Amino acid sequence: MTTPLPAGAVIGIIGGGQLGRMLSVAASRLGYRTHVFEPGANPPAGHVADRVTTAGYDDHAALRAFGESVDVITYEFENIPTEALDVLEGAAPIRPGREALRVSQDRLTEKTFLRDLGLATAPFADVPDAAALDAALGRIGAPAILKTRRFGYDGKGQARIMAAGDAASALADMNGAPAILEGFVSFSAEVSVIAARGQGGDVACFDPGENVHRDGILRTTTVPARLSAAQRTDAVLLAARILNALDYVGVMGVELFVTPQGLVVNEIAPRVHNSGHWTQNGCAVDQFEQHIRAVAGWPLGDGSRYADVVMENLIGDDLDRVPGLARNADVAIHLYGKAEVKAGRKMGHVNRIIRG
Amino acid sequence: MTTPLPAGAVIGIIGGGQLGRMLSVAASRLGYRTHVFEPGANPPAGHVADRVTTAGYDDHAALRAFGESVDVITYEFENIPTEALDVLEGAAPIRPGREALRVSQDRLTEKTFLRDLGLATAPFADVPDAAALDAALGRIGAPAILKTRRFGYDGKGQARIMAAGDAASALADMNGAPAILEGFVSFSAEVSVIAARGQGGDVACFDPGENVHRDGILRTTTVPARLSAAQRTDAVLLAARILNALDYVGVMGVELFVTPQGLVVNEIAPRVHNSGHWTQNGCAVDQFEQHIRAVAGWPLGDGSRYADVVMENLIGDDLDRVPGLARNADVAIHLYGKAEVKAGRKMGHVNRIIRG
Repeated sequence: MTTPLPAGAVIGIIGGGQLGRMLSVAASRLGYRTHVFEPGANPPAGHVADRVTTAGYDDHAALRAFGESVDVITYEFENIPTEALDVLEGAAPIRPGREALRVSQDRLTEKTFLRDLGLATAPFADVPDAAALDAALGRIGAPAILKTRRFGYDGKGQARIMAAGDAASALADMNGAPAILEGFVSFSAEVSVIAARGQGGDVACFDPGENVHRDGILRTTTVPARLSAAQRTDAVLLAARILNALDYVGVMGVELFVTPQGLVVNEIAPRVHNSGHWTQNGCAVDQFEQHIRAVAGWPLGDGSRYADVVMENLIGDDLDRVPGLARNADVAIHLYGKAEVKAGRKMGHVNRIIRG
Repeated sequence: MTTPLPAGAVIGIIGGGQLGRMLSVAASRLGYRTHVFEPGANPPAGHVADRVTTAGYDDHAALRAFGESVDVITYEFENIPTEALDVLEGAAPIRPGREALRVSQDRLTEKTFLRDLGLATAPFADVPDAAALDAALGRIGAPAILKTRRFGYDGKGQARIMAAGDAASALADMNGAPAILEGFVSFSAEVSVIAARGQGGDVACFDPGENVHRDGILRTTTVPARLSAAQRTDAVLLAARILNALDYVGVMGVELFVTPQGLVVNEIAPRVHNSGHWTQNGCAVDQFEQHIRAVAGWPLGDGSRYADVVMENLIGDDLDRVPGLARNADVAIHLYGKAEVKAGRKMGHVNRIIRG
């Protein structure tokens, strides 16, 4: 048993985007205050945080002051510079821990970690240079995807290789960054498990959701996913294996491909995840509160679901659809308060309740 | 049709308690920022507001600056001094409007307003002095309740008169404040309707909830209430009559007694209401968002419910039950972040999902 953080404690959140925003709201429901650290001005999370520090990740004094003002540090994104973590480490506990960040910050490290755990992944190979890319393509074959090892998200830093002739231009797209070649996986569906692990080692998973991507960005998540009972069990067991191996504390998003040979792990994210937003309107304890519960030492919610939900992201001009969506009685709207609409930018999401 | 406030607009909230806190969170979901005006230090709403002004209601400069910094003004409690409203009035629209405040700030005005609308209320009489009390008791009879006309809530400013001999001490309890005598109503249940009216005059009601009070404080609200279809219809129609008569914009709590002679209006509150907290976990659009939608010019949610819920207030030491409640998979916890636990103080509430 762990002792939860006392009422009124301050949870530090690194990153002030929509995930930090919804984490901050969830923290308030449990009686906590939040302090957001974010380099950009007017961050969405700042509107609902008790306090905001606007400073860069290279501002050690600001990082130190932030760390000393909070009782625990968590984050909404995994690409926090290592040196910033070094500064923060002495000030307050970082949850999820640094091992999860180390593994997930680098696609090669992550894939290797998953493979060593005995989990299925896409075939992959380290691509430090053109010669390695030729060898990797020889082994994995085309089509394949070349990705930067670090700092990629929502389809950024990726180049498809449909045939060996695309190799040179794909490599040029990496701009000299270390890369990884990943083979294609033939899948019937993509699902994700939003899994949580508490400080006592207990694990709870939400019902897997079925994801649809377009242009490399998540568009919808539907629960329940079309999975057999055995597939559901597999999904939960493999997520638990990942969390336990990392001695993880918090919520993790685990993206899976459904294939005839079983579930293949696409990627993991050591944080609340876009594909878990449906939990806000389908569960007594949503993924954001689940994460706060874990990092604050509370018992986890059990993840059970009391409604079927379709989550749909509102991307860029999708925002124009809000007035119409607002008239639909079964739609819950969640906007992020971003100052500027841009193509491809996640502006909000809606959860549509599917009545039985 | 009204044009909604644009994304990023600022909603001013007068009062920084738990209702302001939950209004602020709802405003964020619609992409708005909030500015809270509250005399007390460290208000619960401040933890999730974009901005807080700490100043008294007699600080005209602070009120003016607050009013000029926001796009619309709303409030979490009805006892805002008239002079403060006079200062605010020129700066930004006040929603719900001042007529609703005028009526609900004074029990005698409110009861008279309801009676003049043709609605049933408890028998009542103005009690400016001891002679009037004697006359009122002669007409209404005992038992009855003497209440201050203004500034009463949660059983404060009230004295029961079980027999004529209690009159003098009851009057003394009023400390010279103008009072109203209310006769007892023999009721089988107390229910409330959380009703909303938009800027276009559209009205939407949530399903009536059944309330249980103890020591003058709401303990639980259960939906659905045990009402016949005809009673539900009556409840909605009379709530709509009240809102229309006030040209109301926003959410109102209407408390009703269920009697063999029909529904009797106990009191109205021109704001979100404790007995509507269940909507957070039972509806796509909860009462807080409904209120923000109304004051910001959005279409209203239709109030339909997708789960049965029992809301229970956590009062004073009830907070000690939170660790146990947190282990219940069907319980959603909402704490208010109040710095100090006091007997009789509302510290939070839980919504228990009742699975079908």
